[in-house]
Amino acid sequence: MAVDELKITTAEHKSRIEKIQKQLRRERIEALYLTNSTRILYTTGFAHIPTERPLAAVIPKEEQPFFIAPYLEYDHIRQECPIAGEVLTYPDYPGKVHPMRLFARFLAQKGLASSKIATDSMEGASGGYGYRGPALPDLMRRAKFIAGRDIVDNMRLIKSRQEIRLLRESAKWSELAHNILLENTRAGLHDTMVAIKSSYDALARMLRKLGQSYVQMKIALSPVVVGFRGQVGANSAIPHAVYTKNKIRRGDVLVTEAGVEVGGYTSELERTLVVGKPSSRAERCFETMLNAQNAALKEFRPGVRCSKIDEAADESIKDSALKEGLRHHAGHGIGLDGHEPPWLDPGDRTVMREGMVFSCEPGLYFPGYAGFRHSDTVVITKKGMDFITRYPRELEELTV
Amino acid sequence: MAVDELKITTAEHKSRIEKIQKQLRRERIEALYLTNSTRILYTTGFAHIPTERPLAAVIPKEEQPFFIAPYLEYDHIRQECPIAGEVLTYPDYPGKVHPMRLFARFLAQKGLASSKIATDSMEGASGGYGYRGPALPDLMRRAKFIAGRDIVDNMRLIKSRQEIRLLRESAKWSELAHNILLENTRAGLHDTMVAIKSSYDALARMLRKLGQSYVQMKIALSPVVVGFRGQVGANSAIPHAVYTKNKIRRGDVLVTEAGVEVGGYTSELERTLVVGKPSSRAERCFETMLNAQNAALKEFRPGVRCSKIDEAADESIKDSALKEGLRHHAGHGIGLDGHEPPWLDPGDRTVMREGMVFSCEPGLYFPGYAGFRHSDTVVITKKGMDFITRYPRELEELTV
Repeated sequence: MAVDELKITTAEHKSRIEKIQKQLRRERIEALYLTNSTRILYTTGFAHIPTERPLAAVIPKEEQPFFIAPYLEYDHIRQECPIAGEVLTYPDYPGKVHPMRLFARFLAQKGLASSKIATDSMEGASGGYGYRGPALPDLMRRAKFIAGRDIVDNMRLIKSRQEIRLLRESAKWSELAHNILLENTRAGLHDTMVAIKSSYDALARMLRKLGQSYVQMKIALSPVVVGFRGQVGANSAIPHAVYTKNKIRRGDVLVTEAGVEVGGYTSELERTLVVGKPSSRAERCFETMLNAQNAALKEFRPGVRCSKIDEAADESIKDSALKEGLRHHAGHGIGLDGHEPPWLDPGDRTVMREGMVFSCEPGLYFPGYAGFRHSDTVVITKKGMDFITRYPRELEELTV
Repeated sequence: MAVDELKITTAEHKSRIEKIQKQLRRERIEALYLTNSTRILYTTGFAHIPTERPLAAVIPKEEQPFFIAPYLEYDHIRQECPIAGEVLTYPDYPGKVHPMRLFARFLAQKGLASSKIATDSMEGASGGYGYRGPALPDLMRRAKFIAGRDIVDNMRLIKSRQEIRLLRESAKWSELAHNILLENTRAGLHDTMVAIKSSYDALARMLRKLGQSYVQMKIALSPVVVGFRGQVGANSAIPHAVYTKNKIRRGDVLVTEAGVEVGGYTSELERTLVVGKPSSRAERCFETMLNAQNAALKEFRPGVRCSKIDEAADESIKDSALKEGLRHHAGHGIGLDGHEPPWLDPGDRTVMREGMVFSCEPGLYFPGYAGFRHSDTVVITKKGMDFITRYPRELEELTV
């Protein structure tokens, strides 16, 4: 029996392309020219490692999408991207002739020399690492380039059933990974070692179960990442910490993260842990954070503005000293990228709709002491919301 | 006894800033405004996770550098960046007032409203994820913004003694990690599991030895990454593969990678392995690849153009059928970024100078069969070159 792969089907990519082509025809645009690796993955299903070498997927308003790519990606695209038409290549970057000049020639060959082209990069390239080059519009003076990133990004706001299925699969393995993390966490250990060991154990379990139905799309040592990212003890007060030199100690507050990439999608599951008996200060901070998350979670439903979620979390915190611990808004959209619009922020008036997926993660941080944050991934349903991550949130369940 | 941390010293960051300030004064530029996380790390020593939230390091021509950052990074900058002066913050992105408007106000407060400012982003932001915003120059009509990324990038071309020391330390642990990978690799195993297990073992050894002198600067499950990135069996013919569903089999050709981040720097060590007795075809391809690398390695010395390296590798391959296996140029500069200019490419006429660091990695790829690539990191010395990665390159040593 053939195994269904845990990724978006070719049929869905085809229907995304058709939707884009309809919009192009409606707006009298000849083609959409994409350089961003996430947008290329979303539209064509082709995942690649972005570097200094320019790569573009081009969706003409009628014909099959084609690629312009460095020669080293030729076989990769042919092998991994069933919807790709022609793959036009240049030898390498920077090349005796700059790739962007070849891009201009290829586009002319495809009849686009004097066309209206929507693009996500006015440079013509995503511009990673030390990339330098002439802007594509300067090499195609008869063409008209217009901003086109929103054609794709607006589609990405509402997740399809397949996308939600992949996010749920991601969450399922994140929950397992987090259980393993809890078992492995104790005072005296280095958080990094606990993280990589737990990730290994969870990946082994996942691959044993999923076997060849699993495919990793994004470059990483492990598609399962569970750990602390340096948010250990006093360093848990740094929301975007990377590393701590201190080992885990009794009494420490820890902030975890668990994410498993499935078909390019990663849900977000984060928990605040306490090592050993929590102090009364830790209990108070934890409860305030949990109340804020609960207050926020109550507001997710179609028709409500994104700003409302942040407001609800904020207003739930009555104690002004604790309120000073707020360092960021209540969450963000999530999908192929780890952070996506819309934003659960006072400045985002977007109205929530069925199929939108968010992290919900109000946090409290007290420099020199500790940070407190849970993050859950939720999806807006017809009448309310549903958890994508299903995991204990109470202090007694998160004391190790 | 205090332990010296394995990172660039504050004194060196200060001297980089001074060098930049001298150039600014010489060119009558009031400030350098940086948004790219690697350039910020290079100049200030502050490492952060770039997101949709704009963050800038500003180096005025006379005064101390200051930051404009989301509030969640405030304590992080204070804690990790001794050379930072003021840290000006905005609440979050997108905010009730767009952060870029606050950036413009902050710059005006600092006396830069009508100044000539060099920048690495004409948007004013690195623009990650779904970031949208007005371009900073449009909000500061009296200021004059000019392209400034080369002020930093030109400095990065020649590595300092400290940078070379960190790359050598990285290589030392990469070599250990690669030894562990060789011990763990055998037919029947999933390459991803071998990779994460070997990375764990190597990280444990490294942390036991380095203890608190080690600091991870970049976000990753593990600062030690050793594995295959999907380049297993026929899939080794895809230079930028990510994953394979196939387990390692007897007769497979594998392409490895070993990299350890030390103070933000990662050397590049890659090897072609054969599982079991190599076929005569594998031997022929391997020897041709090795000859090409040897031919390239002979040409590294001050005064030689970068293009010469690629030419030497290319010309060493006489068999036209094997020559068709070439898919990319012979290598690239390497430092804080995994790929940096200059490029070992026919189109790069840069003259090599003492202190430049390169990967040397001509590769041969035969779709449906296998790929062959070694990569070593080398530094240009006063009279020639020196290996940063020191590791066996012969087939008999790389047969597992």
